[in-house]
Amino acid sequence: MNPFSFRNPTAIFFGDGSLSKLSEQIGQYGKSVLLVYGGGSIKKSGLYDRVLEQLNAAGASVVELSGIEPNPRLTTVNKGIELCRTHGVEFILAVGGGSVIDASKAIAAGAKYEGDVWDFLDRKAAVQDALPLGTVLTLAATGSEMNGSSVITNWETQLKRGFGSPHVYPRFSILDPTLTYTVPRDQTVNGVVDIMSHVFEQYFSLTTDTPLQERLCESILQTVIENAEIALEQPENYAARANIMWCGTLALNGGLISLGMTNDWASHGIEHEISAIYDIPHGAGLSIVFPNWMKYVYDARPDRFAQYAVRVWGIDPAGKSEDELALAGIEATRAFFTKIGAPATLSHYNIGRDNLDRMAEEAVRFGPIGSFKQLNKEDVKAIYELSL
Amino acid sequence: MNPFSFRNPTAIFFGDGSLSKLSEQIGQYGKSVLLVYGGGSIKKSGLYDRVLEQLNAAGASVVELSGIEPNPRLTTVNKGIELCRTHGVEFILAVGGGSVIDASKAIAAGAKYEGDVWDFLDRKAAVQDALPLGTVLTLAATGSEMNGSSVITNWETQLKRGFGSPHVYPRFSILDPTLTYTVPRDQTVNGVVDIMSHVFEQYFSLTTDTPLQERLCESILQTVIENAEIALEQPENYAARANIMWCGTLALNGGLISLGMTNDWASHGIEHEISAIYDIPHGAGLSIVFPNWMKYVYDARPDRFAQYAVRVWGIDPAGKSEDELALAGIEATRAFFTKIGAPATLSHYNIGRDNLDRMAEEAVRFGPIGSFKQLNKEDVKAIYELSL
Repeated sequence: MNPFSFRNPTAIFFGDGSLSKLSEQIGQYGKSVLLVYGGGSIKKSGLYDRVLEQLNAAGASVVELSGIEPNPRLTTVNKGIELCRTHGVEFILAVGGGSVIDASKAIAAGAKYEGDVWDFLDRKAAVQDALPLGTVLTLAATGSEMNGSSVITNWETQLKRGFGSPHVYPRFSILDPTLTYTVPRDQTVNGVVDIMSHVFEQYFSLTTDTPLQERLCESILQTVIENAEIALEQPENYAARANIMWCGTLALNGGLISLGMTNDWASHGIEHEISAIYDIPHGAGLSIVFPNWMKYVYDARPDRFAQYAVRVWGIDPAGKSEDELALAGIEATRAFFTKIGAPATLSHYNIGRDNLDRMAEEAVRFGPIGSFKQLNKEDVKAIYELSL
Repeated sequence: MNPFSFRNPTAIFFGDGSLSKLSEQIGQYGKSVLLVYGGGSIKKSGLYDRVLEQLNAAGASVVELSGIEPNPRLTTVNKGIELCRTHGVEFILAVGGGSVIDASKAIAAGAKYEGDVWDFLDRKAAVQDALPLGTVLTLAATGSEMNGSSVITNWETQLKRGFGSPHVYPRFSILDPTLTYTVPRDQTVNGVVDIMSHVFEQYFSLTTDTPLQERLCESILQTVIENAEIALEQPENYAARANIMWCGTLALNGGLISLGMTNDWASHGIEHEISAIYDIPHGAGLSIVFPNWMKYVYDARPDRFAQYAVRVWGIDPAGKSEDELALAGIEATRAFFTKIGAPATLSHYNIGRDNLDRMAEEAVRFGPIGSFKQLNKEDVKAIYELSL
């Protein structure tokens, strides 16, 4: 186990009815609020009105930034920063999924920075301060509701980058599973893949002597797997939605489940280059990339992959070699993704070879990626090839 | 799953060498520090000198309160409060195990309260403010290093009570597994029992639809069980000490592992009455009480006990009824406690029937205890009888 440090100060209000906490929470941080959301779904579902009611009860004056894209864009973030400055915004409320929250974090940091907010994404500057923000989560997926990470796309340069800072942890997040009842099937699927992928990035690690952390990872994977199909078949099944939502939050919780383990994160880097150019959903990209990454790297530590096969998928180890078990676990992953309707190939989005070289180049822009097996440009390109 | 709220702002610095973070951390909170510790073990081990070095580096002026008892006493807490007032203490540093930390929390709260600190323990007042505190943990057991709970004994009235408040979460805790190398065997054993007991109080719950929470509990139990004997045989085994330490912190972490589950906590109440009168170690008392509590209550939900037997102890369910499995899991618990050298009966401490009635009366002072099965005075007395 590696040495580690950890602090996660986000307050969570979880459960049916937890939206009622919003007005009291907002009241602690300021009267001038930037309300950030995506497309029209929160208006259609009635959530928009319920949120405004809470904001009014808090006596807040509200400025709105709507239309946050699924892969949130730098131009939109800059719009939000401008709004904060013009209106003297004191608090940012993100109502939506990971994209809305990630955009809000970048706005929060950018509003307190004199330079270009892209500096944080391009690793030219570190966040020193940020406006406080809170979230009302409508999609179980990224864990952004309880961590300090954000991923933003610069659409002009087709670069997708992330930054992290203790300053952008949400002050509070409201997690009401009933708000995910209306999430469309494909987004539910993408969320499930995203949650599982976050665990994979942490679980497939070369660090030894981490039995608790491994089990915490396995616990989330097992729970997501057994609840995914229930939520897809019964979108208003409270228990299934609640279980998936809480799994999503814990899966990427400032690293809570894998403290002391070296993480990998290569697959996320590999996926980001796809969605930066082709604007496909992040979860869908991960569904395509991950089984191929697994196959490409598993021999760095087949025992961990064998353990995954046995503990997560319940594959009987009798008479199987470690390699056979590892490969069976990878195939079980692929089969599950396909079963719930997640894409398996880039061709699903009509993506061919055209940009593979450029994408591989960009993926290793800051040097080789991954720690389970370090990947250089040629390795990344090979994984893209396997994903065609 | 029940609705829940959660916030745990404690910063953790974990690993060999993490003591080096102390001076920087202290520096954030004030120059006048109350250093709280127990017997002489930290002087013998050299930790005392290393801590003072860090305090000096932070430019702190230090007042000391030593001699915190294993079941920390109100009189000692009051001494600490007095010291805080006399010396204008700005920050409390607890160096020790759960008793030292619990005492420090009560001092932190009492120093900011005009009335008698016992009011908090007697539920006559709620904590509104507290001095900031930090900890250097030397014993893996209570989880007090990352939660807002404290248990104090009023030795004059022989009452042992707890209080909890968001104001007494440590600002930071330094968790260096090497600091537990010198913990005596019996205290290591008591710590292991304490950690497992904390999980039991949460895991044996009537709440349904909590598959993730159940698995998180099982993960800690399995990890503690498989590392306990290693740590006992090889006290300087870093991995075993680190795994147990991190299990202890997560086991009682503001409720993290069981959010959304109704907890029980009857066994702790039952134990507290024993150690309030006989001053036996808390972990030893739990080792005596818990298997008997289990046997007394398991029929409220044998399926959870059967799951425990199968998943935690690996008991083969083939051909066994739910009840048989449940009982086998309880016996496995008792056998494990015995195997690691934890006591099984009150007679181990020469405790007879004398005070059983009074103890049972006190245990239900605020009404019936427990939620898995609600226990009144007669039930508590029956569990004491089973424990003789």
